[in-house]
Amino acid sequence: MKLAKVIGNVVSTIKTTSHQNKKLMVVISIDSSGKEIGDAMIAIDHFQAGIGDIVLILEEGGSARDIIGDPKGAFDAVIAGIVD
Amino acid sequence: MKLAKVIGNVVSTIKTTSHQNKKLMVVISIDSSGKEIGDAMIAIDHFQAGIGDIVLILEEGGSARDIIGDPKGAFDAVIAGIVD
Amino acid sequence: MKLAKVIGNVVSTIKTTSHQNKKLMVVISIDSSGKEIGDAMIAIDHFQAGIGDIVLILEEGGSARDIIGDPKGAFDAVIAGIVD
Amino acid sequence: MKLAKVIGNVVSTIKTTSHQNKKLMVVISIDSSGKEIGDAMIAIDHFQAGIGDIVLILEEGGSARDIIGDPKGAFDAVIAGIVD
Amino acid sequence: MKLAKVIGNVVSTIKTTSHQNKKLMVVISIDSSGKEIGDAMIAIDHFQAGIGDIVLILEEGGSARDIIGDPKGAFDAVIAGIVD
Repeated sequence: MKLAKVIGNVVSTIKTTSHQNKKLMVVISIDSSGKEIGDAMIAIDHFQAGIGDIVLILEEGGSARDIIGDPKGAFDAVIAGIVD
Repeated sequence: MKLAKVIGNVVSTIKTTSHQNKKLMVVISIDSSGKEIGDAMIAIDHFQAGIGDIVLILEEGGSARDIIGDPKGAFDAVIAGIVD
Repeated sequence: MKLAKVIGNVVSTIKTTSHQNKKLMVVISIDSSGKEIGDAMIAIDHFQAGIGDIVLILEEGGSARDIIGDPKGAFDAVIAGIVD
Repeated sequence: MKLAKVIGNVVSTIKTTSHQNKKLMVVISIDSSGKEIGDAMIAIDHFQAGIGDIVLILEEGGSARDIIGDPKGAFDAVIAGIVD
Repeated sequence: MKLAKVIGNVVSTIKTTSHQNKKLMVVISIDSSGKEIGDAMIAIDHFQAGIGDIVLILEEGGSARDIIGDPKGAFDAVIAGIVD
């Protein structure tokens, strides 16, 4: 997983069925001091993360489907937790 | 997923069976301000995305097969939605 | 796998079910001379690795689920061993 | 997928069973203007691609096994088509 | 796959069950002229590769499990052949 900060969200009307009613958050990787590193990516959110939250991003399809609870959904990155 | 912009398409006569009648779009990652980042890649399109559209690129085989609706197809990246 | 050094841990109260009672360690890749390279990542620990330990990081979901012993868990990176 | 140019091939006598009688091509990613980008990689060829051909490289195990037609083979990158 | 050169090995007493009696080699990617590129990684060896050998590294869990012959093992990178 990667540490990341939530910096926004994405609205998409034309999207795949398994993304209906899912929140798509824009997150950016951070290092352990909180500095932004790398490029932004889009992760599905299941934990009501808000902008500014530090989150754990899990990038693996099977894991994402487990967290979202949709064994056939189309997910490659998911928010797996919110860091205290 | 990644935010990306559609910049072209690819024509390939000699191709694998599951790519017959599929649109192969050239996309390039962008950051949240719209600036192009990283290298171009080829994604299968299922949503009639056009050149200039901002799209969500999903890079995971199982997810791509779900979106395309071909459980045995050969896909590693797919357009999962068009950003409003 | 990658060689990495354990540099910390992460505490997350809001997290996915399969991460309950798991240790989330912050690790950073090192080269064979011990120099830190690349960015920090978060790996699940199953071997009681401590800060400063040199570990093997395995980044593949199926393998991580095998090591943790949870065939449906949500894992993308795991500590697979501690280097002598 | 990635656009790539075929720049050579690799001969390996000691190799895994599923690579017997397969062609291993050295390819290098290119951008849409044909400029080489990134590092060379090795892809299995199923379409008789020749040196100088522009090809589509698919990097996903399940997809590669589908294209090669060997559901248990050991493949991570495959030539999925030849660009016109 | 990637071309790589074997530069060493790793000894780990505390390790996951499927790595018992396996050789863990340190390899570094090379380009087609033999120049080292990228960072070192750890690959399981099944072909008695020695230090200095040029090898093919396959990075995909299902393929690695096929080559090692352990369908439930924890592998993400494996030596798939030795280049002549």
